[in-house]
Amino acid sequence: MPAVYEGAVQDLIDEFGDLPGIGPKSAQRMAFHILAADSASVERLIDALRAVKARVRFCATCGNIAESEQCAICRDPRRDGRVICVVEEPKDVVAIERTREYRGLYHVLGGAIDPISGVGPDDLRVRELFARLGSGEVEEVILATDPDVVGEATAAYLTRMLRTMSVPVSRLASGLPVGSDLEYADEVTLGRAFEGRRRVE
Amino acid sequence: MPAVYEGAVQDLIDEFGDLPGIGPKSAQRMAFHILAADSASVERLIDALRAVKARVRFCATCGNIAESEQCAICRDPRRDGRVICVVEEPKDVVAIERTREYRGLYHVLGGAIDPISGVGPDDLRVRELFARLGSGEVEEVILATDPDVVGEATAAYLTRMLRTMSVPVSRLASGLPVGSDLEYADEVTLGRAFEGRRRVE
Repeated sequence: MPAVYEGAVQDLIDEFGDLPGIGPKSAQRMAFHILAADSASVERLIDALRAVKARVRFCATCGNIAESEQCAICRDPRRDGRVICVVEEPKDVVAIERTREYRGLYHVLGGAIDPISGVGPDDLRVRELFARLGSGEVEEVILATDPDVVGEATAAYLTRMLRTMSVPVSRLASGLPVGSDLEYADEVTLGRAFEGRRRVE
Repeated sequence: MPAVYEGAVQDLIDEFGDLPGIGPKSAQRMAFHILAADSASVERLIDALRAVKARVRFCATCGNIAESEQCAICRDPRRDGRVICVVEEPKDVVAIERTREYRGLYHVLGGAIDPISGVGPDDLRVRELFARLGSGEVEEVILATDPDVVGEATAAYLTRMLRTMSVPVSRLASGLPVGSDLEYADEVTLGRAFEGRRRVE
């Protein structure tokens, strides 16, 4: 889409368009919303942007996002420090927290091992994970990297490395999503569902 | 989605989520992008937001967005002042400019007449349109409001009101979109295409 608006509006459309998942049409709609919005609400957005850059950092223990040295989960004395769930990104922590099933701690790798993108174990918080396991307090490591190629490769790598630590390692189950239709499941997922079948009686 | 991030990140997700067309997932992805972005690019976004609020206003003549008293189109001496194309919003101006077919001026109403939302002619720049026609320079008014219910109602209202001005009034053609498939056209569009058929030989 050629730049047809005058300076400031086009600049804002371009800036919004640089955000992930925002196409030119969305960027335009957002810019017009800002144009029509009252100044107070625009200032609130600006304050929120500034606050994130100024206040948010990564938890020194687990790598999750935090506003102090440690994140809210690591600081919470009710969490079970004997279990560590390893995930790729802070948003995975949020996804798991939403289930309300898990009461242990996390370890955020900051990505997955991906040779094509040049991401190796040293680019992730793998060393920090082993340092945490060194204390001897941890009784289980749950590998919750994504069930895609790089996530599986990362889980396989960590499984191999963790053998030296004599701590039980588990991997989240793969299988059919709840509420899905068997007919439309891809072969790999269906194969995993067979492989991981559980006796019910 | 419950607020599970710590303060600043959640605040930014909420602010992004208030923008039009941005759901919770997109807002989260955008906030994480900001978190990871370098400060300079975030400052560019903040500057663009501020600049829009500080510098952009509406053209005193046509109501299009402008950075001075008049918009770039009204200031352009190459535009044909004898034709005025009436549109609902500044983005409609952009859509028409993109065709490179039209060399006249515009009049941006700032919306459409919509009794359900309580928008009447006095809430739009209708009086300003009549003031422009008063000069006697204008030889054609093209009604380019959207071909939806409120746009058609607005065009019908303006047609009636413009009868007193003895200036030719036209309406953009309705019909089949170029490149579309007749089979999938809705009945109203197909009916309009018949109604507006043109002799080719």
